[in-house]
Amino acid sequence: MAHIQLPIAPELGREFPGIVGPMTFRPETAAPINELVNVLLRGESTLSRGERELIATHVSWRNGCFFCQTIHGAVAAAELGHDEQLVQRVKTDWQDAEISPKLKALLHIAGKVQLGGKHVTAEDVAAARSQGATDLEIHDTVLIAAAFCMCNRYVDGLGTWAPEDPAIYHGRAADIVRHGYSAVTEAAAALVQR
Amino acid sequence: MAHIQLPIAPELGREFPGIVGPMTFRPETAAPINELVNVLLRGESTLSRGERELIATHVSWRNGCFFCQTIHGAVAAAELGHDEQLVQRVKTDWQDAEISPKLKALLHIAGKVQLGGKHVTAEDVAAARSQGATDLEIHDTVLIAAAFCMCNRYVDGLGTWAPEDPAIYHGRAADIVRHGYSAVTEAAAALVQR
Repeated sequence: MAHIQLPIAPELGREFPGIVGPMTFRPETAAPINELVNVLLRGESTLSRGERELIATHVSWRNGCFFCQTIHGAVAAAELGHDEQLVQRVKTDWQDAEISPKLKALLHIAGKVQLGGKHVTAEDVAAARSQGATDLEIHDTVLIAAAFCMCNRYVDGLGTWAPEDPAIYHGRAADIVRHGYSAVTEAAAALVQR
Repeated sequence: MAHIQLPIAPELGREFPGIVGPMTFRPETAAPINELVNVLLRGESTLSRGERELIATHVSWRNGCFFCQTIHGAVAAAELGHDEQLVQRVKTDWQDAEISPKLKALLHIAGKVQLGGKHVTAEDVAAARSQGATDLEIHDTVLIAAAFCMCNRYVDGLGTWAPEDPAIYHGRAADIVRHGYSAVTEAAAALVQR
């Protein structure tokens, strides 16, 4: 049971898991959160969708948010040719993962943001720039990391539940890859018996 | 100088301060962030605008974000009959501040969210409920705290500057009280020489 009474998903007989629970409870705040995440993770960018999902996954892992690291890890894997091993490695051991030096420098910045904004130094940013990162990529990395510090706290601060079965996340990740974050949440909200 | 090159505010000859700098750099992400903050801090609610601004101010103080704690503190004061002393007290000494027991219980939850979502316990939520807090008020408190963990990291993670003169924050707070967050940022973006 979450800390507050959330709408019941008919096919589950209980609340929707993770962030979807509170999002069906408060559609007025769900809409801008989904729009923000859609722009950052799926909008036009010189970072691939897989790379951006890896940043979201890494930050969610650092914050210990099981739901977010698992669903965004599943989306990252789906975007990266189903390379689950790479996703696991980027969570715990990104320095040695098979990713570009630029993405490593951006993950380093994202990890600093997770600790707190002031941890990011001019040297961290210069290191990313020397690996070819643009100002927009640095901006979006900082904001992705900051946005997941919000989402992780929203999910865990309300005591939402998270399924353990990986197949559930894979199914939901496929929906997200196909339709985007806003559409998937709106479809859940439409199912709620009000 | 911020960590990335931000648009120049003509009347300042440098970037807009705090979050307004990156928001004028990336209007696509500014729009949903402002919409979220508008709904949470200024939308219809059984918590007054002053109370919600105090939650935002307290979390921003906990995160050590000078710009956010000062601007939201100025908005809180404006909403609460210009009681600057109360705002300062809610930052550092909220247990003994002259606020309702319900708001104290909600600030306690907000402080837990700032540390990390898992710090919030069923007992914290029960204590707020016993002071009359509704599920929607508890939801919005968690999300306000989480959203400011995002905004504070966005502001400081990009190394934005913050004016020291309190009069600047009072002027901007008056604009926010009158027009809301989205309108104030859009007005700044319209000034930018592109």
